[in-house]
Amino acid sequence: MSTPSTTALVLDLAGTFAFALNGALTAVRAARLDIVGVVTLGMITALGGGILRDVLLGALPPATFSDWRYLVVAAVGGLIAFALTRQLERLSPAITVFDALGLSLFAVAGADRALAFGAGTGQAILLGTITAVGGGTLRDVLVRRVPTVLRSELYAVPALVGAGVVVIADRVGIGGPTWALVGAGICFLVRMLGVGFRLNAPGPPGSGPGRGDEG
Amino acid sequence: MSTPSTTALVLDLAGTFAFALNGALTAVRAARLDIVGVVTLGMITALGGGILRDVLLGALPPATFSDWRYLVVAAVGGLIAFALTRQLERLSPAITVFDALGLSLFAVAGADRALAFGAGTGQAILLGTITAVGGGTLRDVLVRRVPTVLRSELYAVPALVGAGVVVIADRVGIGGPTWALVGAGICFLVRMLGVGFRLNAPGPPGSGPGRGDEG
Amino acid sequence: MSTPSTTALVLDLAGTFAFALNGALTAVRAARLDIVGVVTLGMITALGGGILRDVLLGALPPATFSDWRYLVVAAVGGLIAFALTRQLERLSPAITVFDALGLSLFAVAGADRALAFGAGTGQAILLGTITAVGGGTLRDVLVRRVPTVLRSELYAVPALVGAGVVVIADRVGIGGPTWALVGAGICFLVRMLGVGFRLNAPGPPGSGPGRGDEG
Repeated sequence: MSTPSTTALVLDLAGTFAFALNGALTAVRAARLDIVGVVTLGMITALGGGILRDVLLGALPPATFSDWRYLVVAAVGGLIAFALTRQLERLSPAITVFDALGLSLFAVAGADRALAFGAGTGQAILLGTITAVGGGTLRDVLVRRVPTVLRSELYAVPALVGAGVVVIADRVGIGGPTWALVGAGICFLVRMLGVGFRLNAPGPPGSGPGRGDEG
Repeated sequence: MSTPSTTALVLDLAGTFAFALNGALTAVRAARLDIVGVVTLGMITALGGGILRDVLLGALPPATFSDWRYLVVAAVGGLIAFALTRQLERLSPAITVFDALGLSLFAVAGADRALAFGAGTGQAILLGTITAVGGGTLRDVLVRRVPTVLRSELYAVPALVGAGVVVIADRVGIGGPTWALVGAGICFLVRMLGVGFRLNAPGPPGSGPGRGDEG
Repeated sequence: MSTPSTTALVLDLAGTFAFALNGALTAVRAARLDIVGVVTLGMITALGGGILRDVLLGALPPATFSDWRYLVVAAVGGLIAFALTRQLERLSPAITVFDALGLSLFAVAGADRALAFGAGTGQAILLGTITAVGGGTLRDVLVRRVPTVLRSELYAVPALVGAGVVVIADRVGIGGPTWALVGAGICFLVRMLGVGFRLNAPGPPGSGPGRGDEG
């Protein structure tokens, strides 16, 4: 079994950081948790997708536990979000942007890692998508929301597209950092467009019009 | 490690299809999700039990990811249910029947697979049961219901019985397709009888008398 | 890979028993489930943390499935709690005490097992903590509560401390039953103090002042 590329590692750690910020801010806003709860939810959001991916790949123990950088980045992200709560909470788009960033980075990094472990074309795309949506789904279950991946059309789809770009580029022999960035960029754009156009769309009963915000 | 029998594979795929229909219809009825949410919930319901089983067996990556047929069957089931929503939604027993079918088929296929991987008698029965109830439990958690396996007496018990028939038949040397069908048949019958007799039983506060319907 | 010490096994089984009692009583009180639901929730609470730990260690199949004693202890605990419901339900602290006992015993047993599988210092502490809080988190998700580990400051922290004592004692070469008991004792004390001092603390909207009780 080979190891993932340096690009994948960098994108993976950046996605971990973005999701840690997102999860911690969600803990503050949605559930009014204290510092331990905030950092815990940040870490689960940040590490959940990668752990799911590694379990499904059979790559155990997961990278999170064999490579300390993931744990440190996730914990630091959670602590920073807690410290900056006042500043970031007022910027209401922050939660959405960090979620879209994590989604995009994990889609391409997850697909890359699946390829490195010899997964097939379809499986690698699916595993990239699971990496991208897994942490946020755990986050939503823990704070008792119906997960975004089920509620929002443009959450799983951009992740599928981003992972697809990386896997297809690899299959036609032009894989590398460029296409990973292209895939992540497309995923981020599609997700942010989706959030923008749905801002006033009717949500399910009991949720306000801005539900897309909570991504 | 040996591979599961052809019978187990066929029953496993049939159960996957039944649970995909059930999960997708649940997504339409319980949470009013759009197409991506419907297919996603169908796939999670269909694949969740088998993934749990394979993780607990240490048979990684799970069959879902090493054998494409599971993913295709689950996705097709979800899409069919979405396309036939109007027709199937009016047939209120459809959700219940598909759930009972999936439960029965997964109980015997899961037990058979556990035996193929050398699990002990008790473990194989338990793993069959976990395969049967796992996907529905994930489904219920994601749409924020207390899982059927906790609410309904006759959900885990018929699965235990169905898995038990397969395992005991194997242990006394008469294993094979016949006993798998017998086990699945008993499980299905007991589950449907349970649903029938509970139709007017008092449910927990907030749920109507037909709660057994939602499987 | 070595096997965990006898001390760890005994503490692990004792923790399994405590969590089975706690989960089963929670099923009775929080969700008014019947016998199958009560025993199932007891077993999930009792076995969930160890299964999570073993998946993250890559020690598959988990101890639960390779060692029958865990399953038997968990099932017996659930059945005893069901049988003694009337007696135990009136003792309102019982749920809290069993939860704190399970937390303490699993923190030290989980850390010990992680060390036995060669985990690093930080990883062993974290895996001890995950073992301790994992089962209760699954329990809370299944009965639709925001997990205690997110709500309560003094739930993850005492587990971290208990696991930390075991791991540090091992690293400085004085590991053994004594330090495991010291770690468990500190964890239990801190948790119970936390519960005591929070009894009248304001909880989140919708929960009463005694929310710490439900641990």
